[in-house]
Amino acid sequence: MMKLVEQMLAGDVLSLSRLITKVERGSAESLDIIKLIYPHLGKAYCIGITGPPGAGKSTIVDRLTAIMRQQGFTVGIIAADPTSPFTGGAVLGDRIRMQQHYLDKGVFIRSMATRGSQGGLPRTTSNVVKLLSAFGKDFILVETVGVGQTELDIMQNADTTVVVLVPESGDTIQTMKAGLLEAADIFLVNKADRPGADNLVTALEMIQLYRKQNHWQPPVLATEAINNVGIRELYRQIEKHLKASEKSGLLYQRRKEQRRTEFIEVIKHRVVGDLLRLIKQDKELSRYMAMVETGEVDPYSASDKVLQPRTLLTSWSQQLGEKGLTY
Amino acid sequence: MMKLVEQMLAGDVLSLSRLITKVERGSAESLDIIKLIYPHLGKAYCIGITGPPGAGKSTIVDRLTAIMRQQGFTVGIIAADPTSPFTGGAVLGDRIRMQQHYLDKGVFIRSMATRGSQGGLPRTTSNVVKLLSAFGKDFILVETVGVGQTELDIMQNADTTVVVLVPESGDTIQTMKAGLLEAADIFLVNKADRPGADNLVTALEMIQLYRKQNHWQPPVLATEAINNVGIRELYRQIEKHLKASEKSGLLYQRRKEQRRTEFIEVIKHRVVGDLLRLIKQDKELSRYMAMVETGEVDPYSASDKVLQPRTLLTSWSQQLGEKGLTY
Repeated sequence: MMKLVEQMLAGDVLSLSRLITKVERGSAESLDIIKLIYPHLGKAYCIGITGPPGAGKSTIVDRLTAIMRQQGFTVGIIAADPTSPFTGGAVLGDRIRMQQHYLDKGVFIRSMATRGSQGGLPRTTSNVVKLLSAFGKDFILVETVGVGQTELDIMQNADTTVVVLVPESGDTIQTMKAGLLEAADIFLVNKADRPGADNLVTALEMIQLYRKQNHWQPPVLATEAINNVGIRELYRQIEKHLKASEKSGLLYQRRKEQRRTEFIEVIKHRVVGDLLRLIKQDKELSRYMAMVETGEVDPYSASDKVLQPRTLLTSWSQQLGEKGLTY
Repeated sequence: MMKLVEQMLAGDVLSLSRLITKVERGSAESLDIIKLIYPHLGKAYCIGITGPPGAGKSTIVDRLTAIMRQQGFTVGIIAADPTSPFTGGAVLGDRIRMQQHYLDKGVFIRSMATRGSQGGLPRTTSNVVKLLSAFGKDFILVETVGVGQTELDIMQNADTTVVVLVPESGDTIQTMKAGLLEAADIFLVNKADRPGADNLVTALEMIQLYRKQNHWQPPVLATEAINNVGIRELYRQIEKHLKASEKSGLLYQRRKEQRRTEFIEVIKHRVVGDLLRLIKQDKELSRYMAMVETGEVDPYSASDKVLQPRTLLTSWSQQLGEKGLTY
């Protein structure tokens, strides 16, 4: 493991890929990986690109990457959007378009499955971001469908969140309800050549007036990503937001909050894992599990019993005496 | 609380509404509510209606409710879809259309916010389903946008899951990737008068051929909900699935699994809550929290320290001696 991490830190892409796979699986090894790379975290700036399916997020990521490369920066792309051409979704044409970056050594692209996250370690995306940061990437772009809670959680890793909308009906309302409005640092109305684009821009600008913003007023940009229109302005606004966040201390505050949330989730994951193992091994405790499964006892009353301090502590101490807990 | 529950069980709608609000807030009271209603859980059959925004899910719920009422059944509707007219989204016409059911005493409609779920009790939807079941509803329809993990979790409450698609591009791929394909018991191609509908039906039917199904082969139905076309067949297929699930034991198995998952989440919620309180109160432990926040220590190494059995048990026992833990 040590060797793999060293190779990755020395710039070996294959080692990076392997480490990401391990972290994605959420295996016990991934704890060690994060511990090892933590002192080597770089200064990567993480940008979330989110919005409904079909809004053109991948094309925006593609065009933005091109500009960042022109400026001499390296880029890591995480596609957590199942419809993204990066993940193999969408049509063949999209995938071919992306290939320019696949051949560029300054760009690392990784697609991630968003479903079935219950088994593994929480906040895997945040760990992949860390790996890319330790690898030395300057920018990390995370593309995700902005709908569910999972997606909002992914967005919490972002230093700048770009919310992409298209002038189609329904999107605005949906986005606002999903809490994306509050998450946005930059609004993008993509496919701005379509009818209704001007109205959407105006609506978003008006909503901004009612939002209390201390250090940053989210701009509303119009783009046609497919024709490379407006992407340079997007890049300029990202730079502007970066500087404003640094100056106001918001960036520091955000990252502090991210670390706190992550810590709590790590604790949650480890404690619950041990507790479930405990229940399985303990006859008394697993009897309650069985009664809940058949519906004889409600889960709350059963948890009263299972979590009764004396029962739990006794069982816990016994385990300690025998072989120690996993943490 | 006892009185409110009694009134609800006696059929008082206002009490039901109040109890749902309490459960939604995830307050400590909600534990007691669930304990009190658990012995009174009815035989409600829960149907999940899921699919992308704009697929016409609300209209399907509306039409399906009408048929169920004709058959003499009572219906509870939970709209966890932010774009649903039930939740106040969508256009005025939709909302007016729904009003026939608002005036019907045999129908109870509740909209739920899906975002910001981190603070409250987990699986609130499942608790609202329980309340509606205890209230005596025959059918419970849960409408949700089928995209994120949260939505898939909501679907786990359903005895029958109906996945709604429309003949627009992208939807199919998106749905398949999001794990909805596996969750579906019935496929519905709505707006079947639009071009591409036949192709979508054929594609879904072909996919079915490759799926291993022991007791149930998910049918693919074509509907035009707005014109009330195909809804009676949907109702027939739901009944059919209900009977098949009962016969094969799948219904029993599913509900057992639901209870188990719920139990684990209740435990998770309670243990972690106490642990965080412990960290806050303990000087040694909160020092680690601070170091994680500033980035001095990685969350995994810090959790090693915080979760060190001796530290934890000592702090825990001290608390017990003083005032006992909350569970």
